Amino acid sequence: MLTEFSISTRGAGLYEFTGEVTRWLAGQGDGLLTLLVRHTSCSLLIQENADPEVQSDLTAYFDRLVPPADHPSMAYLRHTYEGPDDMPAHIKAALMPVSLGIPVRAGAMLLGTWQGIYLVEHRRAPHDRRVAAHFA
Amino acid sequence: MLTEFSISTRGAGLYEFTGEVTRWLAGQGDGLLTLLVRHTSCSLLIQENADPEVQSDLTAYFDRLVPPADHPSMAYLRHTYEGPDDMPAHIKAALMPVSLGIPVRAGAMLLGTWQGIYLVEHRRAPHDRRVAAHFA
Amino acid sequence: MLTEFSISTRGAGLYEFTGEVTRWLAGQGDGLLTLLVRHTSCSLLIQENADPEVQSDLTAYFDRLVPPADHPSMAYLRHTYEGPDDMPAHIKAALMPVSLGIPVRAGAMLLGTWQGIYLVEHRRAPHDRRVAAHFA
Repeated sequence: MLTEFSISTRGAGLYEFTGEVTRWLAGQGDGLLTLLVRHTSCSLLIQENADPEVQSDLTAYFDRLVPPADHPSMAYLRHTYEGPDDMPAHIKAALMPVSLGIPVRAGAMLLGTWQGIYLVEHRRAPHDRRVAAHFA
Repeated sequence: MLTEFSISTRGAGLYEFTGEVTRWLAGQGDGLLTLLVRHTSCSLLIQENADPEVQSDLTAYFDRLVPPADHPSMAYLRHTYEGPDDMPAHIKAALMPVSLGIPVRAGAMLLGTWQGIYLVEHRRAPHDRRVAAHFA
Repeated sequence: MLTEFSISTRGAGLYEFTGEVTRWLAGQGDGLLTLLVRHTSCSLLIQENADPEVQSDLTAYFDRLVPPADHPSMAYLRHTYEGPDDMPAHIKAALMPVSLGIPVRAGAMLLGTWQGIYLVEHRRAPHDRRVAAHFA
């Protein structure tokens, strides 16, 4: 079966939607869940859902690894007309997953204890993001 | 069903093969497409297919993130007998996806408007690359 | 069908488990294998299984790309109470795959000649790691 999850973002950062996926799978049997983010400037990530500092540290690291286009070290970028966060968003989307495959037992994702599913927004402005989901 | 796509590369860069995959899936129903690149020195990527500068900026970024082995900052590398682009290619293959999962509705991949499927060649010399595909 | 692979690690590095997966699939038909690592401080990787220097070079590169939290360049990290290798492990787990999809023909994974499946341990202390597997 297929569905689509919608996530509204309010700036760069991690947005958890584990609960929405869990509810969609409730009552199903064994199988495989696949998620695909339908954009090229945000990512999917499975990360720790316990300490929120993990999420802010992740964002801080990736902002240093891929600085904004108006940073001197990024002067070689040419795709910049949508703003200094445009091309870095595409680069981050190449560094983090666009799709995830998650085995499911008796309608429950086989995630580890501390794993949550996140959409990672790389753009500064608010966006409506869509994630395609397949289960079989 | 299974198939294999062949992509001939002529140096480092992105090679789109969305059209080949689209044609293979035509006439199928709902399901899941999975792609796997059968090499350790190239990658798969879903990226923007509108502005070609996104692709050249991506390549420029990753060449700076992972310089050739004859760059002073990479002097610690030991797997260098195939040339200065050999080990950096393996590193890039660890940073970008080796497999992709794409939900399909009525024979059409649920990609976003601006998403294309690319093989990313990390080696300088021409190569014949193979991508295994599964749909069910 | 579902199973779980267990991998005991003895410090950071790559641990191959291609053989265990191959044996589990023996006798099956065509299909799709999906692997998911059930932790947020290690990764899955398909990489070259011929020259062990590829593996040590990979580890050396990622240790420079994501230095320990007690390195001056990482002073901004806040999630550090589990030690200097804690948050860098989460960052590496965002940079390398958490799940892999591998097409299978007649019970054999369609890996390339030089591709092996690895668990990449990012922590220094020994850990018991679990990988969920689905085949259908």
